[in-house]
Parts: sequence; C-alpha cells; structure tokens
Amino acid sequence: MSHTRELLDAGPGPGNLDRDELSAAIDACLDCAQACTACADADAAEEEVAELRTCIGLCSDCADVCGATARVLSRQTRYDEFLVQRLLQACVRACSSCADECERHAEHHEHCRICAESCRECERACQRILDSEAFQELQALAGG
Amino acid sequence: MSHTRELLDAGPGPGNLDRDELSAAIDACLDCAQACTACADADAAEEEVAELRTCIGLCSDCADVCGATARVLSRQTRYDEFLVQRLLQACVRACSSCADECERHAEHHEHCRICAESCRECERACQRILDSEAFQELQALAGG
Amino acid sequence: MSHTRELLDAGPGPGNLDRDELSAAIDACLDCAQACTACADADAAEEEVAELRTCIGLCSDCADVCGATARVLSRQTRYDEFLVQRLLQACVRACSSCADECERHAEHHEHCRICAESCRECERACQRILDSEAFQELQALAGG
Amino acid sequence: MSHTRELLDAGPGPGNLDRDELSAAIDACLDCAQACTACADADAAEEEVAELRTCIGLCSDCADVCGATARVLSRQTRYDEFLVQRLLQACVRACSSCADECERHAEHHEHCRICAESCRECERACQRILDSEAFQELQALAGG
Repeated sequence: MSHTRELLDAGPGPGNLDRDELSAAIDACLDCAQACTACADADAAEEEVAELRTCIGLCSDCADVCGATARVLSRQTRYDEFLVQRLLQACVRACSSCADECERHAEHHEHCRICAESCRECERACQRILDSEAFQELQALAGG
Repeated sequence: MSHTRELLDAGPGPGNLDRDELSAAIDACLDCAQACTACADADAAEEEVAELRTCIGLCSDCADVCGATARVLSRQTRYDEFLVQRLLQACVRACSSCADECERHAEHHEHCRICAESCRECERACQRILDSEAFQELQALAGG
Repeated sequence: MSHTRELLDAGPGPGNLDRDELSAAIDACLDCAQACTACADADAAEEEVAELRTCIGLCSDCADVCGATARVLSRQTRYDEFLVQRLLQACVRACSSCADECERHAEHHEHCRICAESCRECERACQRILDSEAFQELQALAGG
Repeated sequence: MSHTRELLDAGPGPGNLDRDELSAAIDACLDCAQACTACADADAAEEEVAELRTCIGLCSDCADVCGATARVLSRQTRYDEFLVQRLLQACVRACSSCADECERHAEHHEHCRICAESCRECERACQRILDSEAFQELQALAGG
C-alpha cells in the first residue's frame, strides 16, 4: 500500500542496511507517529483524563521522535551511522516507554491498546536495524 | 497494516466526516510525506540534479504540508471545519504541483514516477473530503 | 538573535513579499509552535487538566500548523501564492482559536497567558502577509 | 523575543536541568531548523547545485532532528534522561556534520556561512546540556 519499499529500490541505495528491514522501520515509524498523535488526542477527550496525563506526554514525545526518524531513514544518500544509531536508540526508547504506559490503560481504553501495539511494532522494527551487522562495529566502539 | 482506521473507530469520532475517507486521507498524507522526502533526497543524488531543483523544492514543501495535515486530521476531538478546509486545500495544491513536476521527470527517474503516484493518491484522498457534504456549506459560504 | 532575516537576504529572494514581514512571520511561527508545545504539556500536568482538554487539542494543532508554515515560508525559491495563502489562512485560524481558548485560562495559568500572547503575535504576523499587496489579487479572485 | 524562557518558568519545571541552558538549547534548535531549511532551499537554487548536493541532504536531516529535539525539550513534565540524551547526541552530531559541510562552502555562499554559524551555536547549546551534571551519571553508566 505504501510506496516506501518501491522508493527505496529506486533510490541510490541504503548502504549496507537491509532494504526489507529499513522499509519496515520507516513504515512502522510513520504508523507509530500517527497512532501516538491519535491516542494523545483521544486521551484528552476521556472523562478520566487525569489518569492519562503521562500517556499524553509520552505519546507526544514518541510521535515527534518517530516522525523525525522516518524522515532521516527515508534519505538514503548518506547514512551517517552514528546519527542513525543515536536516533534509532531514541526512537526505541520513546516507543518502549509509550508502549509501557499505554499497556497499563489498554483494558479500559481501546485507543491505548492499539497505540501500544503500534509502538511495540515500531520498537521491534527499529531495534532490528540496531542489531544488524551494519551497527555491530559502531556498537562495539561506543560501548553503547 | 496501519492502525489508522482502528484508532479512528476507538476515538471520540470524527464528527460528520466519513471514517473510510478520513482514514484513507491520513494514510495517503503519511505515504506522500515519505515519498516526497525520499524523492527530494534521490533528486539531489542524481547527476542531472540541476534539472531537478524545482522538484527538490516542491517535494520538500509537499512533505511538510502532508505531515502537518496527517497530524491535524488524526485529532478527532474537535474538527474546526475552517482550519481543516484550508489545510486540505493547501495539501491538495502542494500534492498537485509536486505531482505535475514529478511527472515531467517520470520517464527518466523512477523515484519521480513513484512519488508522482503517491502525490496523486493523496491529492484525490484529500479532495474527496473537501467534496464531501461536511464541507459543502462552508464551501458555499466562503465562495472558495 | 535568530538567523532568519540574514538567511532571507542571502537567498534567492522572496518574490514580491516584504522581507521584514516575512522574516517576522517565520520567527513568530517558530515561537508559537514552541509555546503551544510547552503549553499543551503544562496543561496535561495541571490538577484541573479536565478543564484544559480543549486547550491541549488546540495547542497541538496550532503547533503543527505553525511548524509547517515556518518551513514553507523559509523556502524562498518558488512562492506558490495559492499554497502560501491557504497555509497562512490555516495558520491564522489555528492561532486565533488557540489564543481564544488560552485567554479563557490566562488568569489561572501563566503558561496559557504566555501562549495566548505568542499565538496573537503569530496571528498578526501571518495576517499582515495575507493583507499585503502580493495577495490582494489572489484574494479578489478566490473571493476568500 | 521568544517566549521559551517565560514558558519554562511557568511550567512544572525541568527537573535538574538548568533553565538558562535548556531555554538556550530550545531556541538554538528552532533557529538551526529554520537555517537548515532555508539553506537547503538556497542550495538547490544555486547554479553549482551539483557541488552542494551533500549540503542539501545534511541540512535536511539536521532540520528534522533539531525540530524534534526542540519539541521534546519543550515538554518539561517528564524528562526521560535516556531519551533526551540520545536525542541530544543525534542533534549534536547532525549539527556538527552540517556545519562542517556548510563551512566548506561558506566563502562562496553566504547562506552556507550563516547556516554553519547557526549549526555551531546549536551544537554548543546541546552539548552544554549533555555535559551538565544531570547527564554525568547516565554518561558514566552508558559508557557513551
């Protein structure tokens, strides 16, 4: 449905990153940014908004980090591995924190359940790239 | 694949906008923002970048307008019809201008062909909402 | 302090838009996007968050529209007057709605008072460009 | 001029981060995002655009990372130190790489000279926060 993978194949190429994994990560970031934007908005409309205040903040941060990550990953011409690594680490963290919080409310709020699902998918897709060979050397060097 | 429609159904509801059309427009905006970001980047990497300078600019504007439109459309709690109308009109225009330019390069650059396709889908999806009953009255009042 | 005006003078030129007004509008959009992001976040932290739920939503929309407007206005190479007009109209509307709501809470919440101030400045700066000669003809044609 | 510091004082407070440093970093990120957007656009309009293609890409990445960093830093309610650290590291890197490239073109292109200046200011402002006590412990733990 999305044109992400097609564009990846038509561009100058993503260095030593796997095209399937990269394409999946970009789409997951876009979906997660949307889910977090919608969830934060639905949170604010709930009667028990006071219990969802942390969720609003975490969703908002996650939407911004995922949006920027999707854009940087979409530019294949020069992968600055350090930049991409730090950004992916920020993204994995934002997704993981947001999913943890949304899962706490998943039983009572369907939008939190769906948002948590999207966050977990994005967390996994970004982590997969961080775990790939392309980042192993950098990982070792940085001790991070 | 995306969670857009599910979240739309879990939220407070999009007023008198059609859920299928709204969900399609949000997904089209996200896809178009991604396509335009990737296409502008691929343009800059082409040998004949000088002929693609207009394409870089139009893609960049289109990515930003689509990104903001996706976010505002994702917040269902209060549709300010005037805001949404003007934003959708800006989005339709940005998509249409970008598609026109990308189509001129579609034969020589596959990324332009794909980007034009994504822009046209987004243009149609946003126009469909502007043409819906929800906006007819406003349309008549504004003369626009 | 900002480099906006300097960059405007160093670029290819903003067509028939006034450089002082354009530079002021870009800076106002950036400031308003920041103010709205901070205000929405502070709203969510207030004890009476339930009374501020509309404020959270309007601030979030306003931040996104202002952010996109700042970016499109920053690209001087080709001003598509129709695109810029619709985007500025969306921005003026988002700022005005957000300021109205924030002003209702200004007495009790200092962040709402400051945010309303920033929104009004942005509303005026964008309206000034819409009122300029560059848009008069388009205004007349569109009936808008 | 900007309302950043005022809003910081009106909000729930930025934990153990210094308000002057945080406010300066937010403003620097916003200015840098604007400068990079304008510089990339001016690059594409130059006759020798082929020599500026790397600059277009680095400016585009830097604008996105700075924009997201400004937003996350503007939300004071819960500083996730790990998220903020990784994001600031990505931001410092994007600013530094973009400044390096812009400086190479600074003699011939005034917009590159100004953009490099804005990038260096943002790099320093973000690094100052990373070097602050609030991040020392995390720095030690992460070995990064």
